[in-house]
Amino acid sequence: MTAIGVLGTGIVGRTFAARLAGPDVDVLVGARSADSASLAPIADLGVRTGSFADAADHADLLVNATNGVNSLAVLESIGAAALAGKTVLDLSNELVPTEHGFPVPTASVENSVGRRLQEAFPETFIVKSLNTMNCTVMVDPSIVPGDHVVFLSGDDDGAKDRVRAFLATLGWRPEQMIDLGGIESAAGPEMMMKVWMSVTIARGPDAPRFNWAINSA
Amino acid sequence: MTAIGVLGTGIVGRTFAARLAGPDVDVLVGARSADSASLAPIADLGVRTGSFADAADHADLLVNATNGVNSLAVLESIGAAALAGKTVLDLSNELVPTEHGFPVPTASVENSVGRRLQEAFPETFIVKSLNTMNCTVMVDPSIVPGDHVVFLSGDDDGAKDRVRAFLATLGWRPEQMIDLGGIESAAGPEMMMKVWMSVTIARGPDAPRFNWAINSA
Repeated sequence: MTAIGVLGTGIVGRTFAARLAGPDVDVLVGARSADSASLAPIADLGVRTGSFADAADHADLLVNATNGVNSLAVLESIGAAALAGKTVLDLSNELVPTEHGFPVPTASVENSVGRRLQEAFPETFIVKSLNTMNCTVMVDPSIVPGDHVVFLSGDDDGAKDRVRAFLATLGWRPEQMIDLGGIESAAGPEMMMKVWMSVTIARGPDAPRFNWAINSA
Repeated sequence: MTAIGVLGTGIVGRTFAARLAGPDVDVLVGARSADSASLAPIADLGVRTGSFADAADHADLLVNATNGVNSLAVLESIGAAALAGKTVLDLSNELVPTEHGFPVPTASVENSVGRRLQEAFPETFIVKSLNTMNCTVMVDPSIVPGDHVVFLSGDDDGAKDRVRAFLATLGWRPEQMIDLGGIESAAGPEMMMKVWMSVTIARGPDAPRFNWAINSA
């Protein structure tokens, strides 16, 4: 049975918990503390809960579902020793709230969450993926038709293979998975969040249920 | 007959010149000076040539096909008075060359070429569009199958309508045109260039003949 640790109990973490609940995956969702009130709806799903450190201890593959603004601090709270050798699927975006309107993504070529996490935790395998879509699409790509894509960025091929296998359990097909290269390339998908936000606003109701596809000549 | 001024004689300007040559569009392509050697291949197409100022004088709709690194200086060389009231379709990206490998896009939420041009020329209507694809796709979207998309960002609805009409002459269908909002939203398509570059590298030969599509649930 696949063991997965999920970091974060926001809408993304809860969506993963609901998707992974059941007999096929041994999942543990972690919050800032094991008695956090945010874990209650997850425990209600029959999913095991604990602290961030408990989630890290539970599995070799961790899903970083925390807000990118906090991700570095969350991993630091777990500690480099506990994270060494583990693969972290980082699906976060750093979105800074604004007074009026939608949050603003901070990513630039020189500044991505994925790269910062990798630099801070050199013995952990960071793989950026899934951050370019709404969480309902992340966990069930079949809700969007066609060969829409999911990007992967990471320095370690073995870790990318482990993430590919996990994506496959969610329903992603190999032809949908686009390897962008090393973790430096994580800036690209993170920088897409600006246009993603504009498209979401332009689409109106039921907006987030879309994904990018690459049409080829 | 539609009059169009094209600024720039690089691969993008030449591709537009070749596409617009003929009886339906009255096009004039401008370079730094009217006797620039870069204009020779354009004149060979039977297309009129001149300086940047000549191109601006020629038409109310200008296509900015200069490198985004230079675009502000090019418009400044024409001058605000000559550009007042005109619509500039800005398809530029600011790509900084690197010693090794591919150029790096500089755009971030606070920094897009489109927005900087609009701020510098408040009496000119800047419309960001077409910058998210290779120029062969810009001028002939039919080479890519399906409802792949072209974004529009700009503060003036009339100017956006003029750009939509021009895009239609290139073969773009209304359902492919996604209005992202004001010129502030131009940062989104410009920030997409990082992942565009990675995808292009990953695709290998014949790489640039693709475009983004939005698949919807």
